[in-house]
Amino acid sequence: MITHLSVSRRALGTLLLASVPAATAIAQQNTAPLPSWRDGRTKRAILDFLQATTTAGSPDYVPPAERLAVFDNDGTLWVEQPMYTQVTFALARLHALAPQHPDWANREPFRSALAGDMAALAKGGLHAMGQIAIATQADITPETFHQIVTDWLAGAHHPRFRRPYTDCVYQPMLEVLALFRAHGFRTCIASGGTVEFMRPWTEKIYGVPAGQVVGSTLKLRYQLQQGRGDLVQTSELDLLDEGPGKPAGIFQLLGQRPIAAFGNSDGDYEMLQYTTSGAGRRLGVLIHHDDGNREYAYDRQSNIGQLDRALTDVPKNGWVLTSMKNDWSRLFPQA
Amino acid sequence: MITHLSVSRRALGTLLLASVPAATAIAQQNTAPLPSWRDGRTKRAILDFLQATTTAGSPDYVPPAERLAVFDNDGTLWVEQPMYTQVTFALARLHALAPQHPDWANREPFRSALAGDMAALAKGGLHAMGQIAIATQADITPETFHQIVTDWLAGAHHPRFRRPYTDCVYQPMLEVLALFRAHGFRTCIASGGTVEFMRPWTEKIYGVPAGQVVGSTLKLRYQLQQGRGDLVQTSELDLLDEGPGKPAGIFQLLGQRPIAAFGNSDGDYEMLQYTTSGAGRRLGVLIHHDDGNREYAYDRQSNIGQLDRALTDVPKNGWVLTSMKNDWSRLFPQA
Repeated sequence: MITHLSVSRRALGTLLLASVPAATAIAQQNTAPLPSWRDGRTKRAILDFLQATTTAGSPDYVPPAERLAVFDNDGTLWVEQPMYTQVTFALARLHALAPQHPDWANREPFRSALAGDMAALAKGGLHAMGQIAIATQADITPETFHQIVTDWLAGAHHPRFRRPYTDCVYQPMLEVLALFRAHGFRTCIASGGTVEFMRPWTEKIYGVPAGQVVGSTLKLRYQLQQGRGDLVQTSELDLLDEGPGKPAGIFQLLGQRPIAAFGNSDGDYEMLQYTTSGAGRRLGVLIHHDDGNREYAYDRQSNIGQLDRALTDVPKNGWVLTSMKNDWSRLFPQA
Repeated sequence: MITHLSVSRRALGTLLLASVPAATAIAQQNTAPLPSWRDGRTKRAILDFLQATTTAGSPDYVPPAERLAVFDNDGTLWVEQPMYTQVTFALARLHALAPQHPDWANREPFRSALAGDMAALAKGGLHAMGQIAIATQADITPETFHQIVTDWLAGAHHPRFRRPYTDCVYQPMLEVLALFRAHGFRTCIASGGTVEFMRPWTEKIYGVPAGQVVGSTLKLRYQLQQGRGDLVQTSELDLLDEGPGKPAGIFQLLGQRPIAAFGNSDGDYEMLQYTTSGAGRRLGVLIHHDDGNREYAYDRQSNIGQLDRALTDVPKNGWVLTSMKNDWSRLFPQA
């Protein structure tokens, strides 16, 4: 994948550019920064923020150790419609597991899920979708689950875009991730999905290593079998990394408050608020899915990725609202 | 502190040496590696392990991304006798908080703790000591607690060694941390103590950043006050990072199984077992406190840092037993 190559080259650049002022760093890139972004408020806000926080002598200068940027995943880095990818994966996996769970035929949300009734499932909200996701992860090792996720992603295609889910990532956001890293930022993910589902592929697709992926987690049980110690995923939720759970998950994993955050839904509200209400220069970006032609248009009434309260509070909180339709000249990386 | 300067220089060296074969890397250092270690089984095991896992073309070669080494803290990186430092801190802090908690005067373990009855507290085990530690952390932000810990460490002295607790760190282990990093390893801490107590100082003292510190954790609550979002530490334990909790904590924070582990007590048993029972070349080191003259001598019968089951199973598990008395030519960094 082109994505992977370009991210790796940028990551290498980070070592060389980390202490170079922003303007110089940007000039040294082969092309102008953020080529898939049209000139507009968000692009200018990102470039201004990076220049202000990484130029030595700037009143807003931030030392490299404090340069933490967090990104929601579903709807911010990749497509979340018509259904969160992890839930689509879980639905497929559920059929493989169903013979061992005859009770699912009469138990919600499993009954709707097995019948392929996405609407009923979406209506059940995060709780129903979480139950499905957990059921497909429980009682196996992280290594086994890693392989199952990898195998599924290698064969599955998005129903509308007819390309692998890992190719349904937003090219403009890949450029943002790389540009932040080129300015000495740690780029981390904070998703409502489980870390076990994301960690197998985030480094390859986004350049974000497993240890920088915050997400919902299941408790792990240690067990010894034939002299070998292994961890086993349980069905007990450890953290729901959504809403007020996001700041908690971020701090527990990363040990500090971010200074930049990107999200797209009410589930990212507290993450954005935690980030931008800290002292000093901050950046909060909210992506608005207003592009029904190229992608999807949804906000206040959506069951998936609802954007209501956060949309209302954009001006009050000083966040930057990004229009997918107007700000992004291109959606996906080249196939 | 000399420690800080030397660690930083080594950290810089990591960037340059990460891909250089071990023998060359060692030769490039100003002095012979591990100068505070006497020649012996442990020193040879460490050097052999680093050479085998980082020399290109070696059958045991491990790519940099998988080079993870974990270190217990109390008794492995710094002194844990006559009482865990965090418990000593908590006892001091308890007096400051007591006026707001009149019930403590008649409630164990608070009554013993306030009376300074260390023996009774140690006898209450991890549970009693944990209750004390939690009570001193609850209902404040991580930032406030960070400052309280920093202030206390700046003024407190070890009762026997008459030096700050952060100077009661083992020089031979500082050298091990730096040498692993010089070979491209991520060095991480996995302690039974709370992450909140350790994160304020581990980077300065050990060169281990906050995000690489695994420990016991309290659940965090997000709250909004006057427009500012903050996290508040609750009194609800999230993870007890001891025994079988250590592998779970390590995997959740770091996303992978370590290939090297250092510990000193039965609380490190599962961490060592999880590390060394994986496939490929592994290293498990157990430090034996057998030096009553320079430090303390304790193992099977101790209330603090008990080493019983792990000591028995050293040969069976292929671990390396380190004698503090015989293997370490020097104990602490120069004051």
